Amino acid sequence: MLSRRTGWNLAGNRLAARLDAARSAGRPLLDLAESNPTRAGLAWPADALGAALSDPRIAAYDPEPRGLPAAREAVAAYLAARGHAVDPGRIVLTASTSEGYALLLKLLCDPGDEVLVPAPSYPLLDLLADLESVRLVRYPLRYDGAWHLDVPALEAAVTASTRAVVVVSPSNPTGAVLGAAEREAIDRLCAARDLALVGDEVFADTALVPPAGVLGASRALAFHLSGLSKVCGLPQVKAAWIAAGGPEAPVAAALERLEVIADAYLSISGPAQLALPRLLADRERFLGPLRARLAANRAALAAAASGAPFDALPSAGGWSAVLRIGETIDEEGLCLALLDDGVAVQPGFFYDFERAGHLVVSLLAPPDAFAAGLARVRDRVARAAAGIWDPK
Amino acid sequence: MLSRRTGWNLAGNRLAARLDAARSAGRPLLDLAESNPTRAGLAWPADALGAALSDPRIAAYDPEPRGLPAAREAVAAYLAARGHAVDPGRIVLTASTSEGYALLLKLLCDPGDEVLVPAPSYPLLDLLADLESVRLVRYPLRYDGAWHLDVPALEAAVTASTRAVVVVSPSNPTGAVLGAAEREAIDRLCAARDLALVGDEVFADTALVPPAGVLGASRALAFHLSGLSKVCGLPQVKAAWIAAGGPEAPVAAALERLEVIADAYLSISGPAQLALPRLLADRERFLGPLRARLAANRAALAAAASGAPFDALPSAGGWSAVLRIGETIDEEGLCLALLDDGVAVQPGFFYDFERAGHLVVSLLAPPDAFAAGLARVRDRVARAAAGIWDPK
Repeated sequence: MLSRRTGWNLAGNRLAARLDAARSAGRPLLDLAESNPTRAGLAWPADALGAALSDPRIAAYDPEPRGLPAAREAVAAYLAARGHAVDPGRIVLTASTSEGYALLLKLLCDPGDEVLVPAPSYPLLDLLADLESVRLVRYPLRYDGAWHLDVPALEAAVTASTRAVVVVSPSNPTGAVLGAAEREAIDRLCAARDLALVGDEVFADTALVPPAGVLGASRALAFHLSGLSKVCGLPQVKAAWIAAGGPEAPVAAALERLEVIADAYLSISGPAQLALPRLLADRERFLGPLRARLAANRAALAAAASGAPFDALPSAGGWSAVLRIGETIDEEGLCLALLDDGVAVQPGFFYDFERAGHLVVSLLAPPDAFAAGLARVRDRVARAAAGIWDPK
Repeated sequence: MLSRRTGWNLAGNRLAARLDAARSAGRPLLDLAESNPTRAGLAWPADALGAALSDPRIAAYDPEPRGLPAAREAVAAYLAARGHAVDPGRIVLTASTSEGYALLLKLLCDPGDEVLVPAPSYPLLDLLADLESVRLVRYPLRYDGAWHLDVPALEAAVTASTRAVVVVSPSNPTGAVLGAAEREAIDRLCAARDLALVGDEVFADTALVPPAGVLGASRALAFHLSGLSKVCGLPQVKAAWIAAGGPEAPVAAALERLEVIADAYLSISGPAQLALPRLLADRERFLGPLRARLAANRAALAAAASGAPFDALPSAGGWSAVLRIGETIDEEGLCLALLDDGVAVQPGFFYDFERAGHLVVSLLAPPDAFAAGLARVRDRVARAAAGIWDPK
């Protein structure tokens, strides 16, 4: 009696179950799979967060479908600082970027419609699409010493059922950042084929090169997604946003419906909306230490990769890095062996790489743990490459 | 390029636009259409709410798909006080009851499937169903001096595409409460036809007779929906829940998927989850004054209806009341005329009554305003019944 759209195989995978067990057992673990900043020594102090959530105006509920004007103005100021002038009227608040995706899938797609998403990318998108009865179709990101969008392959993936193209920039997990020429190509393609352009730009503040945001697209109807989870390191607050860009007429038509959709759920809390201006203005409180952490771990990774039995693929932003271990080593077996070694990393197959032979490591771990974990990865990959799989 | 599922006629209706304009103009308005308790003098003090939202543990984010155990235990304690022993493992937290509906529609229905909902009922359900590409089919609540479920009509509405039956108890707007015999009949029907039973019981704490909750059903897979919006008068906190009831095997299968669905969104904030036990334990802070307010306004309504040109239909709970004005008076014209008189009420057609000739009034208004508004309604209905439509 349950729906087909939720008819997933829930047997789970051994690795995720083992990782959960290892985490909850409390055994010492060098966790290079942790993406929760509040567990990586990057949490806000409770008193500062509590003060922001205790605004005297929280007693009154003011249900605004797009979100409170002051909160939307704060998002517009953030976007302006990123180089995008966006009218607050083009911004809609949501509880999370996941909810942002859900609202856009409903806005753009009927059941059976298709959305183009990059591969590799993170697996949550599949779940979100299933739940809207929308089909995801992959387009490849290609690696040739750097990650590139394969525009002809993207174009070839467009069908009569395609409704939108999703770009993730910086990409999770590759760290690839959309360049101006790539954005121009996608903008033209979307405008020509009547597709919306959806930019998941939650990691934009960690880009090492200036990213070409989707709000800089001028032809296509574009939507930028982000939120306090990644911009302020506050996933627990549940405050995020959609910002619309592109020509006035399609934007107005989209926003009119998006407002009705948002009004049906009104998911973002009043306290979060009232706190948003203060938290967002204070984002360097998180981003400063975060950037230092990422830089330290990137440097440690570069050092560890020198002469190692893996390549650390170059990346231009984001919270994670990709190690290429070669296609002959079984990813899952390696990750399970590393768990036995007290190190958590993720296999490439979680992220839908075109070819096997990758590990994904989070760059959030405290530097000592990161370096120690990498040393064990290096050792274990060397042993695996030599065909040695027994525990040390 | 936008979806058909959001292809609503957004021309809006005159009345809603005029009411919004009247509210935002700040002119004196006897607002008998207000359903927001924080605007009706029933708000929590900001300091008590702020203290609950500033728990020292808010700095850490602990993403639990079903919600934090302590919060689910608090919901279980609330349900136990309502007479339902529910294991906290059968409870899933959501940001709102709207989200609860959305998750259940995804769990139970594929696009094109049908869900039976009562008529009259409130219009949000249509929007929520459209957004999941699910079709609502009405079953009638019948009035013969009291409201009754028409079980044969309900049964006749079941088709091969039906997946669930929604009951709203106490009903919005009629205030009808599901009785034990009615629940028994629906439980049997749902079990026999392999349908889920969804109980929207957000108004349960205002029932004047003991309601038969869906968690008392023993045969069918049942889901109770409620949240802090109506139980504590805290719509701004965005904390709600789904509690599953029924035989172990279907409940377990449903919860396994529901956990995955909830994990895709994780919409309820950390601070709200941490605050939930304290807020829910303190619910009488809101419910006490609320019940007093409702009782005063119910008494005022009974007094005003005596000898009036309308009937006040008996109701057994909820925050609203239905006035029957007769089918010869145009509902929308009457509501517009009342706005000119400085009184806001809602027309029956907003709620999908089977026949015309109803007004819906909120029982939340401060008693002086409620009584004064009713007096103007009485006068205006009398004039309309006499064919006099000119402004006074």
